[in-house]
Amino acid sequence: MHEECGVVGVSFKDEAPAALSIYYALYALQHRGQESAGITVHDGTCVKTLKGMGLVPDVFDKSDVDKLKGYVGIGHVRYSTAGGSNIENCQPLLISYKSGNIAIAHNGNLVNYNELREELEKEGRIFRSDSDTEVIAHLLVKNLMQYELGESVKELLKKLEGSYSLTILLGNKLVVVRDPLGIKPLCFGKMDNGYIVASESVAIDILNGELIRDVRPGEMIVFNNGTYESYQLSRSENYAHCVFEYIYFARPDSIIDGRLVYDVRMRIGAELFEEHDTNADIVSPVPDSGITYAIGFSKRSGIDYLEGLMKNRYIGRTFIMPGQDMRETAVRLKLNTVKPNIDGKSVVLIDDSIVRGTTSRRIIDLMRKSGTREVHMRVASPPIISPCYLGIDMPTRKELVAAYKAVKGVEAVINADSLGYISVEGLVKSVGIQQEDLCLGCLTGIYPVEIPGERCAKRQLKLSEF
Amino acid sequence: MHEECGVVGVSFKDEAPAALSIYYALYALQHRGQESAGITVHDGTCVKTLKGMGLVPDVFDKSDVDKLKGYVGIGHVRYSTAGGSNIENCQPLLISYKSGNIAIAHNGNLVNYNELREELEKEGRIFRSDSDTEVIAHLLVKNLMQYELGESVKELLKKLEGSYSLTILLGNKLVVVRDPLGIKPLCFGKMDNGYIVASESVAIDILNGELIRDVRPGEMIVFNNGTYESYQLSRSENYAHCVFEYIYFARPDSIIDGRLVYDVRMRIGAELFEEHDTNADIVSPVPDSGITYAIGFSKRSGIDYLEGLMKNRYIGRTFIMPGQDMRETAVRLKLNTVKPNIDGKSVVLIDDSIVRGTTSRRIIDLMRKSGTREVHMRVASPPIISPCYLGIDMPTRKELVAAYKAVKGVEAVINADSLGYISVEGLVKSVGIQQEDLCLGCLTGIYPVEIPGERCAKRQLKLSEF
Amino acid sequence: MHEECGVVGVSFKDEAPAALSIYYALYALQHRGQESAGITVHDGTCVKTLKGMGLVPDVFDKSDVDKLKGYVGIGHVRYSTAGGSNIENCQPLLISYKSGNIAIAHNGNLVNYNELREELEKEGRIFRSDSDTEVIAHLLVKNLMQYELGESVKELLKKLEGSYSLTILLGNKLVVVRDPLGIKPLCFGKMDNGYIVASESVAIDILNGELIRDVRPGEMIVFNNGTYESYQLSRSENYAHCVFEYIYFARPDSIIDGRLVYDVRMRIGAELFEEHDTNADIVSPVPDSGITYAIGFSKRSGIDYLEGLMKNRYIGRTFIMPGQDMRETAVRLKLNTVKPNIDGKSVVLIDDSIVRGTTSRRIIDLMRKSGTREVHMRVASPPIISPCYLGIDMPTRKELVAAYKAVKGVEAVINADSLGYISVEGLVKSVGIQQEDLCLGCLTGIYPVEIPGERCAKRQLKLSEF
Amino acid sequence: MHEECGVVGVSFKDEAPAALSIYYALYALQHRGQESAGITVHDGTCVKTLKGMGLVPDVFDKSDVDKLKGYVGIGHVRYSTAGGSNIENCQPLLISYKSGNIAIAHNGNLVNYNELREELEKEGRIFRSDSDTEVIAHLLVKNLMQYELGESVKELLKKLEGSYSLTILLGNKLVVVRDPLGIKPLCFGKMDNGYIVASESVAIDILNGELIRDVRPGEMIVFNNGTYESYQLSRSENYAHCVFEYIYFARPDSIIDGRLVYDVRMRIGAELFEEHDTNADIVSPVPDSGITYAIGFSKRSGIDYLEGLMKNRYIGRTFIMPGQDMRETAVRLKLNTVKPNIDGKSVVLIDDSIVRGTTSRRIIDLMRKSGTREVHMRVASPPIISPCYLGIDMPTRKELVAAYKAVKGVEAVINADSLGYISVEGLVKSVGIQQEDLCLGCLTGIYPVEIPGERCAKRQLKLSEF
Repeated sequence: MHEECGVVGVSFKDEAPAALSIYYALYALQHRGQESAGITVHDGTCVKTLKGMGLVPDVFDKSDVDKLKGYVGIGHVRYSTAGGSNIENCQPLLISYKSGNIAIAHNGNLVNYNELREELEKEGRIFRSDSDTEVIAHLLVKNLMQYELGESVKELLKKLEGSYSLTILLGNKLVVVRDPLGIKPLCFGKMDNGYIVASESVAIDILNGELIRDVRPGEMIVFNNGTYESYQLSRSENYAHCVFEYIYFARPDSIIDGRLVYDVRMRIGAELFEEHDTNADIVSPVPDSGITYAIGFSKRSGIDYLEGLMKNRYIGRTFIMPGQDMRETAVRLKLNTVKPNIDGKSVVLIDDSIVRGTTSRRIIDLMRKSGTREVHMRVASPPIISPCYLGIDMPTRKELVAAYKAVKGVEAVINADSLGYISVEGLVKSVGIQQEDLCLGCLTGIYPVEIPGERCAKRQLKLSEF
Repeated sequence: MHEECGVVGVSFKDEAPAALSIYYALYALQHRGQESAGITVHDGTCVKTLKGMGLVPDVFDKSDVDKLKGYVGIGHVRYSTAGGSNIENCQPLLISYKSGNIAIAHNGNLVNYNELREELEKEGRIFRSDSDTEVIAHLLVKNLMQYELGESVKELLKKLEGSYSLTILLGNKLVVVRDPLGIKPLCFGKMDNGYIVASESVAIDILNGELIRDVRPGEMIVFNNGTYESYQLSRSENYAHCVFEYIYFARPDSIIDGRLVYDVRMRIGAELFEEHDTNADIVSPVPDSGITYAIGFSKRSGIDYLEGLMKNRYIGRTFIMPGQDMRETAVRLKLNTVKPNIDGKSVVLIDDSIVRGTTSRRIIDLMRKSGTREVHMRVASPPIISPCYLGIDMPTRKELVAAYKAVKGVEAVINADSLGYISVEGLVKSVGIQQEDLCLGCLTGIYPVEIPGERCAKRQLKLSEF
Repeated sequence: MHEECGVVGVSFKDEAPAALSIYYALYALQHRGQESAGITVHDGTCVKTLKGMGLVPDVFDKSDVDKLKGYVGIGHVRYSTAGGSNIENCQPLLISYKSGNIAIAHNGNLVNYNELREELEKEGRIFRSDSDTEVIAHLLVKNLMQYELGESVKELLKKLEGSYSLTILLGNKLVVVRDPLGIKPLCFGKMDNGYIVASESVAIDILNGELIRDVRPGEMIVFNNGTYESYQLSRSENYAHCVFEYIYFARPDSIIDGRLVYDVRMRIGAELFEEHDTNADIVSPVPDSGITYAIGFSKRSGIDYLEGLMKNRYIGRTFIMPGQDMRETAVRLKLNTVKPNIDGKSVVLIDDSIVRGTTSRRIIDLMRKSGTREVHMRVASPPIISPCYLGIDMPTRKELVAAYKAVKGVEAVINADSLGYISVEGLVKSVGIQQEDLCLGCLTGIYPVEIPGERCAKRQLKLSEF
Repeated sequence: MHEECGVVGVSFKDEAPAALSIYYALYALQHRGQESAGITVHDGTCVKTLKGMGLVPDVFDKSDVDKLKGYVGIGHVRYSTAGGSNIENCQPLLISYKSGNIAIAHNGNLVNYNELREELEKEGRIFRSDSDTEVIAHLLVKNLMQYELGESVKELLKKLEGSYSLTILLGNKLVVVRDPLGIKPLCFGKMDNGYIVASESVAIDILNGELIRDVRPGEMIVFNNGTYESYQLSRSENYAHCVFEYIYFARPDSIIDGRLVYDVRMRIGAELFEEHDTNADIVSPVPDSGITYAIGFSKRSGIDYLEGLMKNRYIGRTFIMPGQDMRETAVRLKLNTVKPNIDGKSVVLIDDSIVRGTTSRRIIDLMRKSGTREVHMRVASPPIISPCYLGIDMPTRKELVAAYKAVKGVEAVINADSLGYISVEGLVKSVGIQQEDLCLGCLTGIYPVEIPGERCAKRQLKLSEF
């Protein structure tokens, strides 16, 4: 099951309430998953979990957080793309075994889930969900029956193929692990009386903490009683940081692997102009995701930044009546043209990516109805030609418009006067991480891990001794 | 965790909707558990579960039942006495293993839960709840990895100590099992196009089905495609039917192990008069549980049956403000005296049992305030002197008023003019099952299975070959 | 709009919390209306109202009641039979006018509602609901603009035709009024530090209060600061107490106009045997409403009382799938036969009334399926031949089976072996109130107030001077 | 009670579903009120209302809108600032009177509410809420009892002092009225088969309609069966359009009284630079309200537009634990600094207005913690020195920081390096409406209507004859 998620871990050295900090941190990570939320805490004696479907403020109220007593804990927000949107799959997953309790929150996607599960089932093991996390729990417990913690996690790394940023509550210790390729982000910071680990640095900001650094690929950090120890369990020549975290998924105010997402997007905007010199009256974003790109484009090109589309801030569970213009209504409910800003004008329209092409088409149609003379679409990602197997919600290959059509073909589909994607090289340069250390699977069709039927440029891992 | 529960299983030979039948059947068993409800069905291809906290009509609405497509399935209602009132412990428990899915609904209590769990944990197994059912699932899967179904369940019976009536959905087969001592009830009946298995026969009635017979102690029945096969996996010289099903837990219109509960209660009422000849103006029940006893008492004694207490039919989630007369208010919210019926009169008051004595005391106080001259308490069970370890919700020994006080002492506690319990012999005679085949643990302190610190009259089991 | 309702009023002499007492009292009156509930209180300075759809415990939680600060207040539960089941029609109705606030809770039905509303609309007045209560509010305010309270209410009585028991919060005074014919019940009692007024005495019982007496027909009582004053505003030669309060609507433990409802029902049961001597094996009630009658019948006849039908205690919002046997299912969800109690037997079945005949038919069919040899239906009310215009929920005349069929015809419709209704004379004797003081409109077609198209035996009123 | 609201009216010439269009239109106006929503429709025969607390998608689901059958109707969203946030005050207000039903939705604030209500109460009229709308309903009905519609509304205009944009459903006619000074906006547009009236043109856009024009001050328009007729009931030499609709309240993509709000804000941004020449590294908005101003400022000044603050898109019902840094947490939950964008820089920070100064202070503190070297605050409105009595939610005078402090004083309060407000003249020029036609009460202390204790520049009205 493909999942987008956010994870959090908090460890205080004294009796400070972990649950409240986790609550705020999850709130800052809400964009990473709006379907369910969960918190597990430990107070030195016992462990408590609360999780439920919905947004963070819907799942937890003040009295819930009050009741979750404990000075160490983990949290999770989740968006699941497959049918599995039920309470059984909510995280953290809390299990108990011979030596106590383990709670796990996981962001990422295992590509060898089926093999691992089959292997475990052959041993007579039983499963209550179809989540990666339950597989990880089984493997971790198996290892902990034989080895110390470090060795156990190292053995775990050997088994798992794919992306995983894990926050684990092991008794009253907080253990965090990032996969050896660093596919999904994970960073940690210092607070007055403890530490916070999170998918993105904005969760540290909201707690008034200070970002220390990213958790390194292949690193395990154990937080306990106000201190932490790092273990580099695995070393890889190259990494595979997900480029879509920069393009679309992460918040612009997050710092991921040392790069401010906002900066990356500004550079992409500028690069888009460099690669596709354009003459137009204004540059306008598809809000909200296109905004930073458009600002960067405007600055480099000198073309005025002017908003041609406004987003309704109160999008929610609005229903749409079926009917012929239903999809048009759906777009109009989310976006309105600022007619006088675009009427009679030539507009550079900037969006983060084109997936199926249908939304772009409807937006451009809307703009033309409002009198826009020319629409020059500029896209902050290269053509998406291949699915994601590592944690970004994307449709199957046959739904990807760029998988079977060249740029001119997509241009026709979306009804643009011109269409320009950023190049892979331009993107890599803008991110500021060498191509060998990025996962560009959806853009190149070459993945950093082996996936049946797909090409692979596998990274070599070396496991550390300690 | 002590649990009172009701279980259901339904198997149709054609496409008839199992979920709707299970829904109605659970509704008829609602008195066995009001805390959570769940349904799992199989449609030949896949399995679906829906469960939640609350009463059956709160958990399921019409569209839910519509969506639960399948012609075979199981259901569960549950009342848990320990803290474990959360969604993770709701049943049916649905797990998957090497060969597919298994869903289990369980009524009963394992007395060797801790040993079994420890044993399983030593093998590296993990648990997500502290329910008996998860232990049963692990053991069953272990067996199914090695043996055919019959042998697997036989091995399961060897392991489990305690009470268990199980309905199991194994792929698209319905498998039901009753423990070798027949502690908890389980019966099955015929419907137009299939079969229904349930804790009590009232669930068969509500579906307009016909009771075939009780599932025999130690028997496994496999329902598949409109037929069923019985396997007597274990034979016991003697059984241990729970006597409290007759006294309190089951509905009066149920037939359990061949006896109509209503009849048993009528006979107990009559026997109470035989054992404690009483001169009084009227006989009056504590509603609702005392009603049938009082009718039986009235008939035998010739003393007029007249209701001195009325029950509020709309008891619900009414809160009670803390304060000195809070507990008195609590009783008055549930029961009101019919003052003119009891004012100045001598009343035989009949209740099913006395546990702590506090409720009886408050009821008698209420009656005295309304002018009752004499209250002669008659109780349909012998003194409860020992806890239940096998599935009836009872407090610990030190809270049981009769564990440390003789009849005269309890009489004083509850402020009655006289107090008469039925004798164990009278009870056994009224039930109509020989004492060797009943579990009277709470009344005698002698249990049919080994419980640390308690006396035991263990039954000898013989496992069948097939 | 026809409405069944319950009303409450509470006045404390000191700071005691009125809302909590009203909450408990409404809870005791829940059987009079399950659709909405409301409480209005006054704390000497300001007035607060909370009301909502649903049962009392659903509408109010502890914190709500805490927030409703005040030492005087009124409450209301309501069941509306017409479409008007929305929040606008919930009571108490709180309005403000020149001299302050008035809140009104009303039980009854005005038969000249249309004329009164038209008259008020002609004056340019506006309405927000189609409830009697808003008409009463307009008229009361009109009078209060001209007269003192007593005169105002006397003028109100002149205008209103029909049934009305009113609890009114006028500033911080509690004013209660019962219509001059005393159609709907209203009584009051003493509590430790104040008074309680309610539709039925069970609301006084639940508060541990003592019933003082019924509010007299045509009487107004003003409660203020721990005292009360009575004003007999109107005198009538004869009253018109609703006989269906005794037969069906009121709780058996209530005392209405001096008669314990339970006693009346016992006498009706006995009278039924006197009027229809019957030879049968057992007498059995349709639960719950038939129980007291059946006990009375059994006692007089010497025929054994034995329950042949059991009611599911957890009836709620259960849905029923449409289909051919839907209605049969509906009955089976509510009632189950105790087959062994009725199989092969001749049964006297007792119910409170027969309205459409369809439910009786289905119950008798169910009993026959369970083997009942003979069903002798005995009914605690005479044939219902005419609708109620004064506050009891009944269908239109053409749906009343007895409006067009003689006893033998109804007997055939319900498939009984014999059918016996109580006579009007027998009923009157059993109630113990002379026929001239009862409203028997639905049984005789002669009403105590003028209703277009119906016969009337109008009572003469004399208004008092004071 | 001060209220911010949005109103809608829809009239179709055929059977098109009005409720769905109103639902979408309210959704587009959600920013004008998030506390309650309501829809009333008429289908030629009868009228239906649905309203409730919460956002539009929370109040209405698909089946609700389906049930609201009708081809003409009105809608309302509301934010109330006083305690009156309960269901009784929700709009539309539906009343019935002698000649039928009237539903009213109102945006604005009557300054002579108390006098009007007193006058009506003296006539013996009763009130169920303390909303302006109920007063308007009484007056309108009074007039309709005497006059034709036009005359009735003209008489109404004579009585009402203050702001009001009304959509009225009178039987199956849609009547809309804007106050003679045009204080609150109201415009209408054409759809395929009818007309739409709304507080802002974005509601017309969402329905794919075409803006026709603003409803003129003092104009009444009657829509009926696919046509409309305009009646200019009152003429004023000068108007009093609320300037805060441009500055803060309206959506930037709305066109109000002929001006695109976005344009006005761009010009204000430019004007701010003209009035306060500033040397800085970047210009940055307080999101979302400062964005358009900052773009305008950047364009005029040549200073780079760069976002220094990011808004959490998922603000909701998040609770905040009490404690010393609670208010700081509150700001951090809403806004995060993009540290690298502002660290070490001199920043022009642009916000729409400063009310109490506390939020600005906390934002600037946050920026300084992130390393901002200089913060030059520029504000799109002149100092707010006086409260609003006409429909914008503002605190009392003593809470307004600029009411008692000069610019330098406010600068100190908010801890800015420099503070520059736009001038009243600059604002007026930017809006493009002459000062005599604007309401600048909160900025100048001179109001267009008489308010006790405040200065007034009253407009002269002439009532039209027709």
